[in-house]
Amino acid sequence: MSLKAIFFDLDDTLFSTTDFAAQARRAAVDNMRRHGLRLPTDHLLRELQEVIAEFSSNHEQHFDKLLLRLPRRSFDGVNPAILVAAGVQAYHDAKFRHLRPYPDVPPVLARLAKTDLLRGIITAGLAVKQSDKLLRLGIYDYFTPTAIFISDQIGISKPNPKLFQRACEESGVFPKECMTVGDHPLHDIDPAVELGMVTVRIRRGKHAPEQGRHKPTHVLGDFKELLTVLRKDYSVRA
Amino acid sequence: MSLKAIFFDLDDTLFSTTDFAAQARRAAVDNMRRHGLRLPTDHLLRELQEVIAEFSSNHEQHFDKLLLRLPRRSFDGVNPAILVAAGVQAYHDAKFRHLRPYPDVPPVLARLAKTDLLRGIITAGLAVKQSDKLLRLGIYDYFTPTAIFISDQIGISKPNPKLFQRACEESGVFPKECMTVGDHPLHDIDPAVELGMVTVRIRRGKHAPEQGRHKPTHVLGDFKELLTVLRKDYSVRA
Repeated sequence: MSLKAIFFDLDDTLFSTTDFAAQARRAAVDNMRRHGLRLPTDHLLRELQEVIAEFSSNHEQHFDKLLLRLPRRSFDGVNPAILVAAGVQAYHDAKFRHLRPYPDVPPVLARLAKTDLLRGIITAGLAVKQSDKLLRLGIYDYFTPTAIFISDQIGISKPNPKLFQRACEESGVFPKECMTVGDHPLHDIDPAVELGMVTVRIRRGKHAPEQGRHKPTHVLGDFKELLTVLRKDYSVRA
Repeated sequence: MSLKAIFFDLDDTLFSTTDFAAQARRAAVDNMRRHGLRLPTDHLLRELQEVIAEFSSNHEQHFDKLLLRLPRRSFDGVNPAILVAAGVQAYHDAKFRHLRPYPDVPPVLARLAKTDLLRGIITAGLAVKQSDKLLRLGIYDYFTPTAIFISDQIGISKPNPKLFQRACEESGVFPKECMTVGDHPLHDIDPAVELGMVTVRIRRGKHAPEQGRHKPTHVLGDFKELLTVLRKDYSVRA
């Protein structure tokens, strides 16, 4: 079986979204407290979690919403915009400092970048937000620039197989010549299996215990195993 | 004459907006070029300048607009969201690194913070954006937290004297007991003179050559001179 392309999911496949978000939210809330928000960190984290659940993780103004929910007396005497700016700043600075790929990811991508495999991304999310992560992770240069597919720019999102089909069409490859690598059994594996792609489930992160409708071609623990499989089963010289 | 409060303008009074914006825009455009935008830096800076002039400096999506204006072939083969993210990132990182107060500002604010003068901000702009600057500049702690007045939160903007009047009312002081310090003859000095405040024009930055309708109480070159005036003419023990 000869592979022409390999598509990666982004969140929780190339880095731990969960760990990063937890660190960044805690940093944000702590900085709001330092600037005069008088409530315990854990209370604020719970409220912020609820805001994100209720208004979606891509809503723009989580910290404004957070303040709207809290009693005004908990930040009496402080301009709320200062608190919002303190939260946003700490969140952004965490992004600057803490957004790192899983340590096994960059060495494998670096090796794949020396092969003639097309290396793409298929991710669900907002265009600039997903692009921002890809750049901050320091791994963008390993990918084929024409093969970054973000649901927001295409009007089709996971788990719709059409998103994967579009990625294949625009890359000029057939699904059976492509491998999809992802952590999410329902969003990454099921649609790719239905389209006839080779599928690799990386079993880590918050979706590790979940079960999809279809069996992936391979279930692996990390990217080192992926490299082994690519060499052995697909004759990739990486 | 006994002073109870001193209000500062923010942009170009406490730091050089002009210098910062020039550095940050150049960094943004250079990073877009590094990620595949194939046009000369100076051309891109001119186009970006036009975007800002046409859509206002507070518009959210300058880099998206910039790409819309450019021929598609100048970034063929690159996802435009990657270019936008590259621009936004470099701009934010410049903010992190380069946003600094004029060097004479922090020592004077530190001294004033030890007096019983109320120390406020009266600034025109977006609430979170102005707050973000104040925090990034590292000078927020020198101010009275209840005395940060941002036009966007009040529904009144410069040069309307009502903005200055509201700052006095909310701070529980009469205009004649207050000093306003700013760089802009029309936006800072004229309305404050009309309200009967003591006014200090700091003559530096891009508005230095401009002329207002009213003569300020003092025209000074920097914050060291301000400290001298406060001590000599207003018996401030700073």
